[in-house]
Amino acid sequence: MIKYTDMTAQQRKAEYSAVLADYEKQKALGLKLNMARGKPGKEQLDMVTDLCNILVKPEDFICDGIDSRNYGNVDGLPAAKELFADILGCKPEQCFVGGNASLQLMYDVIAKAYTNGLLHSDKPWSKLEKVKWLCPAPGYDRHFKVTASFGMELITVPMTAYGPDMDMVEALIKDPAVKGMWNVPKYSNPEGVVYSDETIRRIASMKPAAPDFMLMWDNAYCIHEFEGAFVPFADILSLCAENGNADMVYEFASTSKVTFPGAGVGVMATSEKNLAYLVPLINIQTIGFDKINQLRHVKYLQNKEHTLALMRRHAAILRPKFHAVLDALDREIAPLGIGSWRRPVGGYFVSYDAMPGTAKRALALCKEAGVTMTGAGATFPYGVDPRDSNIRIAPTLPPVEELEQAIAIFCNCVKLAALEKLGV
Amino acid sequence: MIKYTDMTAQQRKAEYSAVLADYEKQKALGLKLNMARGKPGKEQLDMVTDLCNILVKPEDFICDGIDSRNYGNVDGLPAAKELFADILGCKPEQCFVGGNASLQLMYDVIAKAYTNGLLHSDKPWSKLEKVKWLCPAPGYDRHFKVTASFGMELITVPMTAYGPDMDMVEALIKDPAVKGMWNVPKYSNPEGVVYSDETIRRIASMKPAAPDFMLMWDNAYCIHEFEGAFVPFADILSLCAENGNADMVYEFASTSKVTFPGAGVGVMATSEKNLAYLVPLINIQTIGFDKINQLRHVKYLQNKEHTLALMRRHAAILRPKFHAVLDALDREIAPLGIGSWRRPVGGYFVSYDAMPGTAKRALALCKEAGVTMTGAGATFPYGVDPRDSNIRIAPTLPPVEELEQAIAIFCNCVKLAALEKLGV
Repeated sequence: MIKYTDMTAQQRKAEYSAVLADYEKQKALGLKLNMARGKPGKEQLDMVTDLCNILVKPEDFICDGIDSRNYGNVDGLPAAKELFADILGCKPEQCFVGGNASLQLMYDVIAKAYTNGLLHSDKPWSKLEKVKWLCPAPGYDRHFKVTASFGMELITVPMTAYGPDMDMVEALIKDPAVKGMWNVPKYSNPEGVVYSDETIRRIASMKPAAPDFMLMWDNAYCIHEFEGAFVPFADILSLCAENGNADMVYEFASTSKVTFPGAGVGVMATSEKNLAYLVPLINIQTIGFDKINQLRHVKYLQNKEHTLALMRRHAAILRPKFHAVLDALDREIAPLGIGSWRRPVGGYFVSYDAMPGTAKRALALCKEAGVTMTGAGATFPYGVDPRDSNIRIAPTLPPVEELEQAIAIFCNCVKLAALEKLGV
Repeated sequence: MIKYTDMTAQQRKAEYSAVLADYEKQKALGLKLNMARGKPGKEQLDMVTDLCNILVKPEDFICDGIDSRNYGNVDGLPAAKELFADILGCKPEQCFVGGNASLQLMYDVIAKAYTNGLLHSDKPWSKLEKVKWLCPAPGYDRHFKVTASFGMELITVPMTAYGPDMDMVEALIKDPAVKGMWNVPKYSNPEGVVYSDETIRRIASMKPAAPDFMLMWDNAYCIHEFEGAFVPFADILSLCAENGNADMVYEFASTSKVTFPGAGVGVMATSEKNLAYLVPLINIQTIGFDKINQLRHVKYLQNKEHTLALMRRHAAILRPKFHAVLDALDREIAPLGIGSWRRPVGGYFVSYDAMPGTAKRALALCKEAGVTMTGAGATFPYGVDPRDSNIRIAPTLPPVEELEQAIAIFCNCVKLAALEKLGV
């Protein structure tokens, strides 16, 4: 096979006819396949369902003298703080253990900045003329939507193989209206990039003009290798503290992809000073989160080592799915020179960069053939990819056989879109 | 016994000495008793703990084709909507079923008004000069704190035996800056007042100047009789709709005092138009609430009738506790003419009105003797009771024998405070 750009017009026409014929056959199957969202599959859920059978008798619900069934302990069970501190490498006193979603903790702490102001704010952000926010992209659509929903101006920072473009970040944070930055430091969504030590060092030692700058550190995939051994990560709280930025960082994690996506436990880790300021504000919003579910997780996951063992069992389920996608891309697309992708070893996504100007068209073709994908552009602020190129592939939910069908259709769609662009 | 006000100075001195001697004996016991918060007791929690053993095998977690373990369904499981619609008398489509706390749903919908505006708002409330809020008092401290945390001006509306003073409410809502009103319509916190049909009719037909007025209808104790038969209540959503106020009302309920305070399920019921506006905003905050816990509740509570049967078992546990408190007040305080209280048949509190100017002193004496009570003033906006009179008694948590000790100490404390006030 030769590259599409090296083909003659006639060769491209022939290729187009051949691919189109194959695509029409796939379409005729009337399939309904979904590679849209980073959901664990049924096999993974079944594997951890014993979590729900771990607390049975009334006495099982008592932990460190606290009755998990009753009100109280808005910042979480002490045992749950210890579990997350073990996993994240921070101190239990820095952990705020919440409900079933770390996204809600992220939203809520930004909402508090907006409605009440943070520890080092002059006033609530709602009283400011303008708030700007740094968005490394491609990135996580739900992050961008949170800050957009508060009317902030989202500034795109390009992602590199080492993390966000730090020269650009260091220039932008000189503007006091720039109040924060999203990060998924390990196996970034969607590219699977792991921030380099150097990137992390530069981030931890930033000197933003805004005294209440929020370094949002969504460590969503901190223990989520699907290939190879666990990759240790630095404790961002310590690194920031060493650089005089103790109150700048808010780290998040959850068990959404360890136990249940809909019924896991989320955590926010931040300085004790930040917690002393925030916990009373959060305590106005709620009397407390679900401590029974926290206790289930404490007893089921036990500690970091035991949790990593469970993650290896998840990896065994996920690995063939990622291979099905990556192998198809290697085989079908690589020789054609019409797209590029990284080869992640953790996280929940594969990020595909199509020939510029063809992502939307390729996904429209996918949809016609019954394959639902995350919308083109979703990985950029405001849902607009200026190059119309990035596509997020989520291989985790479908069984392998469905995934193979879906990625085969996807490959034909990006081929057709590229050929149309090049002229056929 | 004669009334303290009818006593001579000498009689009061003698009484003071006698009560003080008894109080000192109680103090010497070094007790630690708590009548501060409306928490269910251990016996109640043990009674419902089987809730956690209802979902066991993977297939148990599927409901109406939805896997409760995975992401999705931000507005709740359809079966959970049906359960709450049955209990509240509204339509399932009007129910938003959330996480473990209805307080969080209340906070969040007001937060959305503040950060984004509501369906009929001209702009987000954070952009307004002034927002005022009506607070029937005595009322629930956590309600008042929510609206105070957004910088609103809280306006006290006196409670009567029939609900809030509606003449005053109807006058106040002519001010377009008045944006909402708290209500606990059945067994109000703390007095146990049930709003009369006439009060509810006047509320449902209000014509507030603010187009985005929020009638916050916290039906926290809608099925929480501890004495006598279940008292039916009107569907406030229908009543408001009949009066052209369909989008004015937000009703809340939860299973915090049906199953677990810390791990129940909360619901917000409001117009379908309001939900169509709010759900996408809430979906920015979270991917979804804990559907596993929703499903547990659906299977355990089943429907309204079955839930009412469970509430009768709660009532059997609670009744002796309320009797212990009310009987002591009848016996010890009623003849002295130094306090007044209602005799609730549902809810979680007894509200005691001490001789004006003595509530704080009485509670300080309680504290000295090891009895923790809700702080004086807590039942009023900003925590300030202008008459320093109202005290909230929460009899539900302690076992009956502890409660009898605690209320005996309480009676001595209000006697001492009254005698000090009258002069001894």
